[in-house]
Amino acid sequence: MTGRDGGAPLVPQGNTPVVILVRPQLAENVGTAARAMANGGLFHMRLVAPRDGWPQERAWRTASGADRILDAVQVYETVDDAVADLHHVYATCPRPRHVIKPIMTARGGAAELHAATGRGLKVGLMFGPERAGLDTEDMARADGLIRYPLNPAFMSLNLAQAVMIMAYEWWMINDQTDARELMTNETHIATKGELENFMGHLISELDECGFWRSEQKRPGMVRNLRHFFTRGEVTEQELRTLHGVVRELANRRKTSEK
Amino acid sequence: MTGRDGGAPLVPQGNTPVVILVRPQLAENVGTAARAMANGGLFHMRLVAPRDGWPQERAWRTASGADRILDAVQVYETVDDAVADLHHVYATCPRPRHVIKPIMTARGGAAELHAATGRGLKVGLMFGPERAGLDTEDMARADGLIRYPLNPAFMSLNLAQAVMIMAYEWWMINDQTDARELMTNETHIATKGELENFMGHLISELDECGFWRSEQKRPGMVRNLRHFFTRGEVTEQELRTLHGVVRELANRRKTSEK
Repeated sequence: MTGRDGGAPLVPQGNTPVVILVRPQLAENVGTAARAMANGGLFHMRLVAPRDGWPQERAWRTASGADRILDAVQVYETVDDAVADLHHVYATCPRPRHVIKPIMTARGGAAELHAATGRGLKVGLMFGPERAGLDTEDMARADGLIRYPLNPAFMSLNLAQAVMIMAYEWWMINDQTDARELMTNETHIATKGELENFMGHLISELDECGFWRSEQKRPGMVRNLRHFFTRGEVTEQELRTLHGVVRELANRRKTSEK
Repeated sequence: MTGRDGGAPLVPQGNTPVVILVRPQLAENVGTAARAMANGGLFHMRLVAPRDGWPQERAWRTASGADRILDAVQVYETVDDAVADLHHVYATCPRPRHVIKPIMTARGGAAELHAATGRGLKVGLMFGPERAGLDTEDMARADGLIRYPLNPAFMSLNLAQAVMIMAYEWWMINDQTDARELMTNETHIATKGELENFMGHLISELDECGFWRSEQKRPGMVRNLRHFFTRGEVTEQELRTLHGVVRELANRRKTSEK
């Protein structure tokens, strides 16, 4: 499921949250996290004390083209340093214990991030190390915690997956895509009249070949066919094809009857 | 960001969508996809013509404990075989071209999957190979397409990330978590009376040490302090700590004055 837009610029647009990876262990995960950020329109990545140092070539190999994000990474020694210039910081956290903070879903958190950036505030999103997650000292530095609603029977969430979900929810805040539409790639939905024109063609051919068996059954069978052809939207092109199908089948019959 | 619940069972519950990975290339991605499925409460995985054959030990290594899903994987030679017993099939697809199908967002798709499973129908979700995605023949077998709203300037979406987003939206359909709450780990939010009791304690100590400088400024400064302490919810435990802080600071002053 790829399809990278090679030439498209990954340039920061507007005021977007900073993603802070705290003590990340694997450079590959930093790269995959950058890729997930790019998917969701996030650009600013900071690292706090990456285990193997920085830069790491392996990160670029897994970023799948989100190089600009990695090229601009800022590295800090402590969480305090990494958040010093930010106004709001949220910590992602699977199972906070003994922490008294506002706690949000990913969707609720994205809404708060959006509201804060809209006020011109600089906001950050902290993610903990792969194995252990953020510790209680890290969380004490956050204004709020974000806990994803996910299967409680299986909480093991990959770091890049955690970033992906927040990046996705961040993107969704502004996205206006309809939940459902018919793909209209230069297609035109047929009008009821065009559909009825086809129904007339079909029925006349079926009349001619004696399809109905009994005149009594005809109205019900016609109605059933009409139900079928009106169940979903039909395009003009599809109607042309269906006309052709009916014409061709009828011709073959007529030819074989000769 | 981990924390695996070792003993928790990953047992299929209810009628959940089947995840169909079509011609997956890397076994690692199959494993990570299984992990993402577990996160979202999906259990049934099918593979169509995996490039390197099946089983592959590397998949189990990246599944992070979602072994049951991999153990139960069913392998098929063709998409037709893989979907033969399903009633509805949806194909995830970043940029469908020349395809005339209902097209949904991930959220809209999850809602349709939920509606269909609620009617007792067996539904499937198809994901294409890493590099190229589903081809047009695969898509022709789907009832609808799911296209994620994500950054159009960076469409390269990792296979497991694609599975993660659908698994997350599937889980969210049934999730009742409030978007925002205060973490209440055996905590009790202080009542207004308890808060006012503390304010009284604080103010009387500040009165005693001449904090206000001028009697004229006192009401405004008290009000500002009250604004600060009522900005967020305060717990009973925090109030006890605050009482202690005030008492201690006042005592130190009194002691040093002696």
